[in-house]
Amino acid sequence: MTPRILEVRQQILKKNDLCARALRARFDEAGVIVVSLVSSPGAGKTTLLQATLSRLAAGGLRVAALVGDLATDNDARRLAESGAPVRQIVTGTVCHLEADMVDAALAAAQWPLNQLDFLFIENVGNLVCPSSYDLGEHARVVLLSTTEGEDKPLKYPTIFNTSDAAVVTKLDLAGPAGCDLPQMSANIQDVRPGLPILLLSARSGQGMNQWLDFLHNLSTPATQPAQL
Amino acid sequence: MTPRILEVRQQILKKNDLCARALRARFDEAGVIVVSLVSSPGAGKTTLLQATLSRLAAGGLRVAALVGDLATDNDARRLAESGAPVRQIVTGTVCHLEADMVDAALAAAQWPLNQLDFLFIENVGNLVCPSSYDLGEHARVVLLSTTEGEDKPLKYPTIFNTSDAAVVTKLDLAGPAGCDLPQMSANIQDVRPGLPILLLSARSGQGMNQWLDFLHNLSTPATQPAQL
Repeated sequence: MTPRILEVRQQILKKNDLCARALRARFDEAGVIVVSLVSSPGAGKTTLLQATLSRLAAGGLRVAALVGDLATDNDARRLAESGAPVRQIVTGTVCHLEADMVDAALAAAQWPLNQLDFLFIENVGNLVCPSSYDLGEHARVVLLSTTEGEDKPLKYPTIFNTSDAAVVTKLDLAGPAGCDLPQMSANIQDVRPGLPILLLSARSGQGMNQWLDFLHNLSTPATQPAQL
Repeated sequence: MTPRILEVRQQILKKNDLCARALRARFDEAGVIVVSLVSSPGAGKTTLLQATLSRLAAGGLRVAALVGDLATDNDARRLAESGAPVRQIVTGTVCHLEADMVDAALAAAQWPLNQLDFLFIENVGNLVCPSSYDLGEHARVVLLSTTEGEDKPLKYPTIFNTSDAAVVTKLDLAGPAGCDLPQMSANIQDVRPGLPILLLSARSGQGMNQWLDFLHNLSTPATQPAQL
């Protein structure tokens, strides 16, 4: 059985890569910067995205978001409060987003991509499976909250290896949770030397300016990640 | 492609179910109660297990644990400090445990099962994929920390639907995290009416006695879950 399963999996991944490549070409042509967020459930992707959409929109930028979940459109409703166009992707039992889901959601949304500055894609909360699926994004950002423990990068290395930046969230809870921030950063660097690390709390606002600077720099060719 | 993928998946699940059934029969014959723990990464499975092994062992019970992770044997080393026999299952890129991994780990460990009162199985941190794989356990316990947000049961319903109890962890952080505990419990009950819910903090010890009572009751036939 094993060779057959592997073969099917390879075909799925290849199909995904082709679709992701086509998406990235469309994003480049439209001049929209696409950022995906991955993390455990409850690390704070939606809360960060809420604060990000509001601040970017307040700064005159045109932003939109796709959000993936197994069930509910709770996140899309939360994010719509920012005023930005948001569309939910309900995956059912699928534990991650795939490029064709992004493609289908964009087709349904009919957003004029060339009138957007940023498109965010929030993945299903899962530190494992999303790492294998390119969504055509320009930068994948992995979130890790201070309440999850310093050891998570060591235990879930692939998602850190395939990301372009790490954001340590819930900085306001680092004290109560007893999080050793230098150790957490050292563990991220152990797994992926040189990965940019941002520390923030979307609730308190601490570190949000650096995060916004990071996003702005993605749209400046000189500082774009290698794959842009 | 889709029908072929589904067919392969059904065969994998069927193979897993047969293996799980055989494991459960062995556990029943040996008289060992087997409890699996599932949750997001960082919800506190290992910390709860550490406190649980120590307290059960201090009460004269014979306990052992298998712990699953993509990488590292950190958890096995942490748990071994309790003095209980512990074995790590390193899954590589596999996002969940399967019954044959449990079977292989038990064969390698060579623990005399009939001399154990409790065997714990800590799954890979993942709120999605482990829900599909029976491990032969008598009770599956899903952990959800107060820092993850009240909405997680609604967004990850399958893991709650397939569990025999929910444990809300990090109760000491509910205040700092602004967790609405009644809402979290209501969301669990929405998804799975009647599911027993325990609230605890392994760090402060609050709620640990009720958790130990829950475990003791699993070994009393009158109060065992239906599948025992």
